[in-house]
Amino acid sequence: MNLNSLKVVNLIHDDFEDLELWYPVLRLREAGVMVHLIGEKSNIKYKGKYGVPATSDFGFSEINIAEYDGLLVPGGWAPDKLRRYPEAIQMVQDAFYQKKVIGQICHAGWVLISAKILKGKKVTSTPGIKDDMENAGAIWLDEPVVVDENIISSRRPSDLPLYMHAILEALSRKVIS
Amino acid sequence: MNLNSLKVVNLIHDDFEDLELWYPVLRLREAGVMVHLIGEKSNIKYKGKYGVPATSDFGFSEINIAEYDGLLVPGGWAPDKLRRYPEAIQMVQDAFYQKKVIGQICHAGWVLISAKILKGKKVTSTPGIKDDMENAGAIWLDEPVVVDENIISSRRPSDLPLYMHAILEALSRKVIS
Repeated sequence: MNLNSLKVVNLIHDDFEDLELWYPVLRLREAGVMVHLIGEKSNIKYKGKYGVPATSDFGFSEINIAEYDGLLVPGGWAPDKLRRYPEAIQMVQDAFYQKKVIGQICHAGWVLISAKILKGKKVTSTPGIKDDMENAGAIWLDEPVVVDENIISSRRPSDLPLYMHAILEALSRKVIS
Repeated sequence: MNLNSLKVVNLIHDDFEDLELWYPVLRLREAGVMVHLIGEKSNIKYKGKYGVPATSDFGFSEINIAEYDGLLVPGGWAPDKLRRYPEAIQMVQDAFYQKKVIGQICHAGWVLISAKILKGKKVTSTPGIKDDMENAGAIWLDEPVVVDENIISSRRPSDLPLYMHAILEALSRKVIS
């Protein structure tokens, strides 16, 4: 499967869950996808919950999501920060309505809640934010990976292999279509 | 590619490089491979250089490498610890002579040096241990991934996508053969 023509955004802020950011980024690069880490501005050195570093490639306002095929949100505490940026929320909404592949894992659901795109959607997340997800109108399932149209979600780092399998399957349909 | 029938050992000790342990483990699980983390004994809670946790499944003496198809050694400071265990060194030697797929990244080469299996082998590693690798008889190359028969090596975390591409290619030949 050659995904060389595809581009994916990975949102980033401090205290991301280290593996939930990096496994998807490295996995997509292994598949040939161009991945950009998007934070407040370019070249910010962020640190994960455990301290694994990651540097942003561009700022929220420096890219056009229409040029990308997917948008991933890592878990950890980064989603609590990311949801405070109107440009980040706008990007998630644009990605949703433009039918980009949207991936969210663990606490990432907070960002989708603030983007108000979860009403009637089947999703999962860390059980810790199940109430927030349901209050936003989502149908919450305790499964390793849940796919509802263009929204793909998982619960925790140990779900990453199944999460990325689903993300890659969805992205490969972008190549065919 | 269905690698469900394969089993791989990943050696572990404290201060492993977090992504160099976890990217291969999760990537192999995504491909259907059964991965076991092998440390001093079962159920030890190790921590990576940055603090990402990982728990051993079995101890060095509790498995038979003949039942596995590959053996991976992570980087970080774990290799400096691992090379002190005669059982671990014996396991690496057995894996080498039984033509298992052997993966080593970054500082992992120290373990292969102590296993005395590098004479005349083309390898890479973090540039920091280039001298140690050459003194052990290896031919050192500055490339993202180097494959010499059953030994596959890479330099650093950013090489992980190419490293795992090569590891999976070598493992897939185990299914065919």
